[in-house]
Amino acid sequence: MNVNGTPTRTVWMEGGTVRMINQPLLPHRFEILDLNDYRDTARAIATMQVRGAGAIGATAGFAMAQAALRADAATFHQDMATAADVVHATRPTAQNLFYAVKTVLGAIAGQGDNIQAARDAAVAAAMDLADDDAACCRAIGEHGEPLVPNKGRISTHCNAGWLAFVDWGSAMSPVYVAQRAGKKPFVWVDETRPRSQGARLTAWELAMEGVDHAVICDNAAGHYMRTGEIDMVIVGSDRIAANGDVANKIGTYTSALAAKANGIPFYVAAPTTTIDPDCPTGADIPIEERSQDEVRFTWGWSDDGTFMRVRTVPEQSSGRNPAFDVTPAELVTGIITEKGVVSASVEGIASVARS
Amino acid sequence: MNVNGTPTRTVWMEGGTVRMINQPLLPHRFEILDLNDYRDTARAIATMQVRGAGAIGATAGFAMAQAALRADAATFHQDMATAADVVHATRPTAQNLFYAVKTVLGAIAGQGDNIQAARDAAVAAAMDLADDDAACCRAIGEHGEPLVPNKGRISTHCNAGWLAFVDWGSAMSPVYVAQRAGKKPFVWVDETRPRSQGARLTAWELAMEGVDHAVICDNAAGHYMRTGEIDMVIVGSDRIAANGDVANKIGTYTSALAAKANGIPFYVAAPTTTIDPDCPTGADIPIEERSQDEVRFTWGWSDDGTFMRVRTVPEQSSGRNPAFDVTPAELVTGIITEKGVVSASVEGIASVARS
Repeated sequence: MNVNGTPTRTVWMEGGTVRMINQPLLPHRFEILDLNDYRDTARAIATMQVRGAGAIGATAGFAMAQAALRADAATFHQDMATAADVVHATRPTAQNLFYAVKTVLGAIAGQGDNIQAARDAAVAAAMDLADDDAACCRAIGEHGEPLVPNKGRISTHCNAGWLAFVDWGSAMSPVYVAQRAGKKPFVWVDETRPRSQGARLTAWELAMEGVDHAVICDNAAGHYMRTGEIDMVIVGSDRIAANGDVANKIGTYTSALAAKANGIPFYVAAPTTTIDPDCPTGADIPIEERSQDEVRFTWGWSDDGTFMRVRTVPEQSSGRNPAFDVTPAELVTGIITEKGVVSASVEGIASVARS
Repeated sequence: MNVNGTPTRTVWMEGGTVRMINQPLLPHRFEILDLNDYRDTARAIATMQVRGAGAIGATAGFAMAQAALRADAATFHQDMATAADVVHATRPTAQNLFYAVKTVLGAIAGQGDNIQAARDAAVAAAMDLADDDAACCRAIGEHGEPLVPNKGRISTHCNAGWLAFVDWGSAMSPVYVAQRAGKKPFVWVDETRPRSQGARLTAWELAMEGVDHAVICDNAAGHYMRTGEIDMVIVGSDRIAANGDVANKIGTYTSALAAKANGIPFYVAAPTTTIDPDCPTGADIPIEERSQDEVRFTWGWSDDGTFMRVRTVPEQSSGRNPAFDVTPAELVTGIITEKGVVSASVEGIASVARS
């Protein structure tokens, strides 16, 4: 999608260098990070310089490709196992990360003892993962666009736009396709505490693409659903269980409850790589708990342009910070995938899940 | 309630001096403001150095008493009419403020031309208003305490603790009574964006009283309800309609939806002064929309102790900022008043409403 008019991806690889948008600096500053070692690339996932299901997956694939390029031939497979452990350890809820690592390891395994072929295969597999992600997201937009009414008012949570993927995004892809089709959608952007991905990233993306929008506190989405100012909800997902339960950014569940209570369609948009067939239900999805300091402080830009944090919580008070919640399948109107829109059910999920 | 071990009210009067906690500095700094002139006291209401329905009412009464102590005997009634205008103008929608001014003026009118008796009556009436507020809140605590289970885990939103009243508070009063009864309650404190009243004020209050608690993003309350870590919800209210619909801080509605979906009792605690018998339903309650800058910026303390704001929303994006929402009566388990716990229904409300 466009950054100041220039088509841009969130993450890509040039030679042995992984390049990515440094997302914590957005929307204040647009900067590209260059990472030359897979451990640095893994760290960029852990510290959320890159975040979002698809972008994490692509970055994990690139990290594995970097590891393959650098691993000593004598200890190649052992080094790759170590690299897999390092990459796995960065974000435990991210299904796409596990898929990417598995895919690159599979490509390597196909080359037997030919280490150069293994390196080439790893790079090719990682490149394919990124291109596949962009193509899937574009297809999600095509399948989802007919669901968006003309001048439709769409609520979204967190960032499931192109910054969360390689390009196009999941939840925002139908909006971008609708915008290019002249439908003039309007997006209600939940700010998405504690890390403000909606306020910082989704709002920035929408502004860059010229989509009309307003940022609201997460508290206000239910109110606008009750007062009839929201036509549909589209969110992304970090993992979808085999029964259609959906793990996504904390706060998605209450958004789904409010949509249900007010008869508003609630769609989850995600590539089928997000489906975890080994997770029977949402109860089987581990929920990452992050540092309580994310709750106790808010990061942003001071009036003189310094990126800094301010404390809102008393020093003697503790905080809790679950990063995700689970939305039960019965609250989900449909799941928009690159293969089409399916029901959030065992049958619907099975019809599109990758093996 | 206790501040660093010393019983303290939010606002009180000593001689002709009104003393109050300077609330915008909490939780970073505890400071008492001394105000010797009614105009300064009125200004403290306008600038929200004191806030919360009960505390505003008591402060307005004290301001009127100060005016009575200082007014020239020759122009006494004229000066009091001027003072009433000044106090009225501070927060033009605060019901308790108008009630307090009217009460003090009524006490003065009862003394005819005896100016010294009028001054004494004004002070006594203001003191009574503050004591009544504290007594009502204490009674809310006594009525609500039996609803709090031993080691009960209570979710609350915004600040409906003693800082919003003269003492005890509304939603937090049952918690304080339960704590003193040895029940060891635990409170999940919604941070309450955009103004962080939960994070800044409720957490501070609870810490000062030694009540175990954790601050969470507003997004997380529903999650903890779904995972069985919340036993009940108690919130305050800014206005209760005759049918039991409740206006309260934005986000209350989605909290109520999550409680309902998970079979968790959802109580509203409020003195009967909060009931507006002239409002048939929640649809008749006007919802104040505040500055979008409250959404686009977050205020807090920098690491070097400066109270300042940081921007999270891109400069080119707009925001929307409804301050309250309406929770329909059918989501409310009961309303805890100083006269007892009643149902959120026309009959329940009528049984306790003041004429």
